[in-house]
Amino acid sequence: MSTKKQHKNSKANNNRYSANRFNNHSRQSFDRITKKKGKQTQPKQDNKPPVKISFLGGLNEIGKNITVVECQDDMILIDCGMAFPDGDMLGVDLVIPDFSYIEQNQERVRGIVLTHGHEDHIGGLPFLLSKVNVPLYGTPLTLGLVENKLREHSLVNKTKLNVVNAGSTIKLGCMEIKFIHVNHSIPDAVAFAIKTPGGTIVHTGDFKIDCTPISGDMIDLSSFARVGDEGVLALLAESTNAQRPGYTKTERMVSESLDNLFKKAENYRIIIATFASNVNRVQQIINCAEKYGRKVAFSGRSMVNYMDVAKRLGYLNVPENILIDIDMLGKFMPQQEVLVTTGSQGEPMSALSRMAYSDHRKVMVGEGDFIIISANPIPGNEKTVGNVVDELLKRGCKVIYESMYDVHVSGHACQEELKILHRLVKPKYFIPVHGEQKHLRKHAELAEFLGMDRKNIFIGDIGSTVEITENSLKETAKVPAGKVFVDGLGVGDVGSIVLRDRKHLGQDGLIIIVASLDVYDGHVISGPDIVSRGFVYVRESEGLLDEVRSMALDILEDCAENNIHEWGIIKNLIKDDISKLISQRTRRSPMILPILQEV
Amino acid sequence: MSTKKQHKNSKANNNRYSANRFNNHSRQSFDRITKKKGKQTQPKQDNKPPVKISFLGGLNEIGKNITVVECQDDMILIDCGMAFPDGDMLGVDLVIPDFSYIEQNQERVRGIVLTHGHEDHIGGLPFLLSKVNVPLYGTPLTLGLVENKLREHSLVNKTKLNVVNAGSTIKLGCMEIKFIHVNHSIPDAVAFAIKTPGGTIVHTGDFKIDCTPISGDMIDLSSFARVGDEGVLALLAESTNAQRPGYTKTERMVSESLDNLFKKAENYRIIIATFASNVNRVQQIINCAEKYGRKVAFSGRSMVNYMDVAKRLGYLNVPENILIDIDMLGKFMPQQEVLVTTGSQGEPMSALSRMAYSDHRKVMVGEGDFIIISANPIPGNEKTVGNVVDELLKRGCKVIYESMYDVHVSGHACQEELKILHRLVKPKYFIPVHGEQKHLRKHAELAEFLGMDRKNIFIGDIGSTVEITENSLKETAKVPAGKVFVDGLGVGDVGSIVLRDRKHLGQDGLIIIVASLDVYDGHVISGPDIVSRGFVYVRESEGLLDEVRSMALDILEDCAENNIHEWGIIKNLIKDDISKLISQRTRRSPMILPILQEV
Repeated sequence: MSTKKQHKNSKANNNRYSANRFNNHSRQSFDRITKKKGKQTQPKQDNKPPVKISFLGGLNEIGKNITVVECQDDMILIDCGMAFPDGDMLGVDLVIPDFSYIEQNQERVRGIVLTHGHEDHIGGLPFLLSKVNVPLYGTPLTLGLVENKLREHSLVNKTKLNVVNAGSTIKLGCMEIKFIHVNHSIPDAVAFAIKTPGGTIVHTGDFKIDCTPISGDMIDLSSFARVGDEGVLALLAESTNAQRPGYTKTERMVSESLDNLFKKAENYRIIIATFASNVNRVQQIINCAEKYGRKVAFSGRSMVNYMDVAKRLGYLNVPENILIDIDMLGKFMPQQEVLVTTGSQGEPMSALSRMAYSDHRKVMVGEGDFIIISANPIPGNEKTVGNVVDELLKRGCKVIYESMYDVHVSGHACQEELKILHRLVKPKYFIPVHGEQKHLRKHAELAEFLGMDRKNIFIGDIGSTVEITENSLKETAKVPAGKVFVDGLGVGDVGSIVLRDRKHLGQDGLIIIVASLDVYDGHVISGPDIVSRGFVYVRESEGLLDEVRSMALDILEDCAENNIHEWGIIKNLIKDDISKLISQRTRRSPMILPILQEV
Repeated sequence: MSTKKQHKNSKANNNRYSANRFNNHSRQSFDRITKKKGKQTQPKQDNKPPVKISFLGGLNEIGKNITVVECQDDMILIDCGMAFPDGDMLGVDLVIPDFSYIEQNQERVRGIVLTHGHEDHIGGLPFLLSKVNVPLYGTPLTLGLVENKLREHSLVNKTKLNVVNAGSTIKLGCMEIKFIHVNHSIPDAVAFAIKTPGGTIVHTGDFKIDCTPISGDMIDLSSFARVGDEGVLALLAESTNAQRPGYTKTERMVSESLDNLFKKAENYRIIIATFASNVNRVQQIINCAEKYGRKVAFSGRSMVNYMDVAKRLGYLNVPENILIDIDMLGKFMPQQEVLVTTGSQGEPMSALSRMAYSDHRKVMVGEGDFIIISANPIPGNEKTVGNVVDELLKRGCKVIYESMYDVHVSGHACQEELKILHRLVKPKYFIPVHGEQKHLRKHAELAEFLGMDRKNIFIGDIGSTVEITENSLKETAKVPAGKVFVDGLGVGDVGSIVLRDRKHLGQDGLIIIVASLDVYDGHVISGPDIVSRGFVYVRESEGLLDEVRSMALDILEDCAENNIHEWGIIKNLIKDDISKLISQRTRRSPMILPILQEV
């Protein structure tokens, strides 16, 4: 409310869609539409078209963020992310959304607007764009990262990339989309205020409130305030840290911690693992390195790629002669070197893991190394990160990890920041996004605590669709949505049956029973031979496998004697009896695979 | 040092092994040996026999705790635990120590002393006792739990169980072992002061300092003090919480939190998940239930088993008519019921998981349920616990989890408690035990911080052996040690090859190529047939599998034409070429398994 007092045209505040002159920039096209609306009668207009919002990802899951906004005949997408597979998705490389709904409506899709360049917001793009050609709109860094990605998939020439700076507004069909600068753990992140004929939708993307960011401005709270004063139909806000009370600390705090650690490590080589996309974190490391006269090398493919783009586009300021190639490591004194590496999540193939397990081609670590893991483990990665730390310690490295010192801050808003955003945007309806059930619920509770009516809050799932008007938020029929698995070059060819088999094979291994049968009488001509993998150490279990062979032979000969020639029946007999035998002897249940050939 | 002032016979304090009369109980036999020593010349005696300590488990790992102490011709074991498999030990049910060293020396083993009844301290016993018959010594509850376990393995009749109460001393060969009461998350836990001709070894077991425990006394610090005053050669202390500053809170604090939650949940059925072994936690739940007029039911096999033993031995006090069978749930009003269940770690087959996924035969959960997870996730379990919480929330349950409210406290000593123990015991040498490398290192740093010389601290690994005398701690040749996998009935028959195959099969699946060849000329008589599992959804990949078939046929016919009849060579050709084809087409590497038969 206090911001209202500062408004110069206080009368206009009675009009939900009025323009105001307070603290605005790049608002020309934005104001145009608001002025026009200002002339209409207020406040309720049931003849306004509804806004339809569908969630193809990002609800009840971490990652794979993608939201569809529709009004009249126009459709836009907000982000198109991927997710990392859960532990039970064996062999799956990544998970992308089901794009059927977009494919079915492709002639209505006016564009994809991107909040920022993290994989969980842009990683699904190549897979969508190979099916549907849609123009992209994003800030310079975001599109720089997208471009790299599309190049790898040979999609860069056929995709239209439109650079939009934070503060600007674009028009896609009947929707005007304002890009609002926010703070996050990657530069050039934005939120969207989407002005539709049915009302304004605000989508925060990922954000935090950082009053002292390392690069760029503080989150553009003024724009949120102005949009809020003009009237917001629905807020979609991220929920990652909705369970955490208080405020997320400023990225700048890391500088001080790093400085202290650089002092502490004066006789050591320093190795710092962090997220490749955290350009500001790397900037701080470079600043520290410069101050203490150290050279900086990058390790890990994604680290090198991200830093290339960030440097080229001016998001990373690198003093002359400070960067060295990883092959130059060792040419200087240890206390003159810093290695910035991937692997902060203990990923088995990452640079840091390879160093920890003495499997890195170029870097050997030991007692002369001071290693800082500048990241917190993402839930599910605690164990692998812990194992990497242990291996490094065993090699005699000093290791700074987890919450020792303040070497990491989150990129997401905690409860107090969320409250500020809710208060500024003042939406009629609220939909928590980006989070598992526990995060969405907590965020909903927070909105209720701020005074919002429970029935104006919608907790959805992937596939959920809502139609929102001034007077109602209604859930409508679900749209197709799901998890599509990418495994190697295959997209969607690994489904639940394949995964079930992988799980079975991985847990218990398999026993193959092969026999050649006489095409005339069904008697065994060759075999049965028994091959097992992942079941027991064969040399020590020959007795058991002999039993299996003789049981299989008995069954096959019995069938031949009794004129049972249908292979389905014979195979089932073998499967059943041998499963029973194996279970009795070992209490295990390997996959039993009878293969018959006719000769 | 301040405790010394209270000594009545202060002169005796000059003698490291002198008896003192301060605050002792059940010290008769303990004093006898110390008095005798008091007459010997002091302080250094190089002619004392060395004490040899070997670690068969519990170092650089969580669980599988087992330590061997030897002096002269006598050997004792401290605990015999199991560990849960890591994520990469596919299909493994549990992990036990390698017992070779004990088997090789079985005629010298005088007994196994047990610190407490947790699986990571007693879970390996059935597997050791089926090979070596050794008497066990433990407190009543510990042996009650061991007895149950041995009964399942039909070992109860041939094993000698000797009940020893905390405060008592036993003699095993040349060693006198004093059982010292400690606090932990299971009642009746003890530490050991092992008086050997070579000096006294103190092993803490798992412990915390709880000045206000729910049952039994506070940890017997006086005994630690007395043993310390008498002189301790080496301390082996647990390191689980060595990374955590401050103190572990008292178990009693949970009472207040539970009380508040019972009030808050007055209109709900309450379901509380906790560790089955945490008898004191369940006691507090029962106390709360009584206060608020609720009946209590138990769910989960291990919960029922533990509570049976605890009740029978008097460690759980249950008021009349408060316990009901799980089948009685629903016969009362929801607000008159409490269900105490296993599953606090999100274990897939546990009672709570089944409830969350609507797969429990007897309990359906929903909006009327107030669910408290009274435990923290053990590292590695965060994700599964989180998933269970999400499922419960989706069903409309209220869920209290993680650090919301104080519904859980640790059973392990934090840094300040460890310091007190070190100060009381005042060992010459220190060996941190029970923990991963990070825990052991941190504990070693803590000892150094207290003034111990770095070279008097030994950080070991499994298999490590040290020989300790008054003047030196020397690492000697390693003893056999490792991880033995239990899978179903098989103990040790799953090794690295089987696990590697399971991992390969689980990640990528397999392709089997079967063909019958003419015994004379090697030409293909039947097949090749292609069978795949866990690779692709076959119906959508017929083209690729046809390619595989025709490539295999070409190779086989080529070999026949060129008189290549050695199956090893033929199989390798098939493997190599088909691997290449599959990798080109799919960027995957399933296991390729050619099986040939001669007809």
